[in-house]
Amino acid sequence: MTTWIRFRDAEGSIGFGTLDQHSGRVVQHDGAMFDNPRPTDISWAVDDLTLLAPCEPSKVIALWNNYYALSQKLDKAPPQHPLFLIKPPMSVIGPNESIRRPKSYHGKIAYEGELGIVIGKTVSGASVEEAEAAIFGFTCVNDVTAIELLQEDPNFAQWCRSKGFDTFTCLGPCIATGLDWRQANVVTTLEGVERQNYPLDDMIFSPAEQVSMLSHDMTLVPGDVIACGTSIGVGSIKDGARVDVSIAGIGTLSNVLAA
Amino acid sequence: MTTWIRFRDAEGSIGFGTLDQHSGRVVQHDGAMFDNPRPTDISWAVDDLTLLAPCEPSKVIALWNNYYALSQKLDKAPPQHPLFLIKPPMSVIGPNESIRRPKSYHGKIAYEGELGIVIGKTVSGASVEEAEAAIFGFTCVNDVTAIELLQEDPNFAQWCRSKGFDTFTCLGPCIATGLDWRQANVVTTLEGVERQNYPLDDMIFSPAEQVSMLSHDMTLVPGDVIACGTSIGVGSIKDGARVDVSIAGIGTLSNVLAA
Repeated sequence: MTTWIRFRDAEGSIGFGTLDQHSGRVVQHDGAMFDNPRPTDISWAVDDLTLLAPCEPSKVIALWNNYYALSQKLDKAPPQHPLFLIKPPMSVIGPNESIRRPKSYHGKIAYEGELGIVIGKTVSGASVEEAEAAIFGFTCVNDVTAIELLQEDPNFAQWCRSKGFDTFTCLGPCIATGLDWRQANVVTTLEGVERQNYPLDDMIFSPAEQVSMLSHDMTLVPGDVIACGTSIGVGSIKDGARVDVSIAGIGTLSNVLAA
Repeated sequence: MTTWIRFRDAEGSIGFGTLDQHSGRVVQHDGAMFDNPRPTDISWAVDDLTLLAPCEPSKVIALWNNYYALSQKLDKAPPQHPLFLIKPPMSVIGPNESIRRPKSYHGKIAYEGELGIVIGKTVSGASVEEAEAAIFGFTCVNDVTAIELLQEDPNFAQWCRSKGFDTFTCLGPCIATGLDWRQANVVTTLEGVERQNYPLDDMIFSPAEQVSMLSHDMTLVPGDVIACGTSIGVGSIKDGARVDVSIAGIGTLSNVLAA
């Protein structure tokens, strides 16, 4: 398992590299993360770096109703095909960046802890096997939602609006390759109190199935992120509160809703 | 009024410039279309160029229910805020490129002729006046839809999926600056037969109102496109049929659904 990060160094330059989780050392790479990255002679202590969102997606595809436990709670049948909305690139922030409340919105803002799939190869119409090979790795996602907008208009569920605000897609802290996702849980805490703790193995569409089926809907390109949907335990974030999304093998993504 | 195009020249290089609609001459520019473009000494006959989509949006925001005539026909109240979905960058094609039927889909594919707003400046939380100044110009849009997917799942309207396929956002043929949109109609023909002919003046949210309100939802960046929604007359395209979307002052956007 390799852990990839993007970062800004003390001089303000943006770089990327591999992180050794035990020693906290980062080996900077050049080239491109998804296309023949090469190690350089430069290494860093991770504590001297500012972590950035680990990739820059051209689109974030966010699933709804992709866990059996949630579909039972909602009393909705499991879907036949991934149900999704698209979040825009400008919604993405990295670890420790602040979630910003939209000035025009005074309602509840919800956290949703999720597994994120990071695409490593351009892929279209892929089989499940081809899709598996197109997955670069996994990250943590907090799919933030201005939940009171979702059903504000009785004629049109505003998925893209309620989830598309700047800073509403938190990604990080890294991308872990070779993660055995079936053995992991998503654990979400709010101000340190556990609110979500669900097994990834309860997923309706596995990561490779998602990539395969979505690649029949649109071409996926390196750096794109699929947020696999959340399960039970979603709640709202008070202004000033911190949300941590943790997945063993990836780490903890921490973001505060700015007061 | 200035008319901007992007093109591929006979040697395969991509460029952009201004088109004189009367003479058919193109003055190539360098720099960036939205940031201090400078005329060069190079000019072309437009017929010697392959037109491309006139911009490369990071996102396409597509409105639903933005014309009074359609809202009356649907018996839906005019919305209080633009209702929208997001179409991904890979869905964009230019004039004369083929719309491709998804291999996995055998149902009806609909055309929707629309006005497209092209953003020229990064804009967030803009007043209507600031929004007006952030509009670079206008283009024609065919907002193609795999219409039978939209309500396939009873629990989730699949707006992003049904409209997000590769080639499902046709843009062009150019971007017209300074267009007096209130005087223009959108005319859509299918195999040369008129199917839509509606006045832009019937819009619920004007272009500047859309840009202002949407800029409170997310940051808009140069090249982003807002598809203003369609009005009455939407229908389906048989495989092999041609759809032309025309707006006086912009021209005609022509695309065939590949047989």
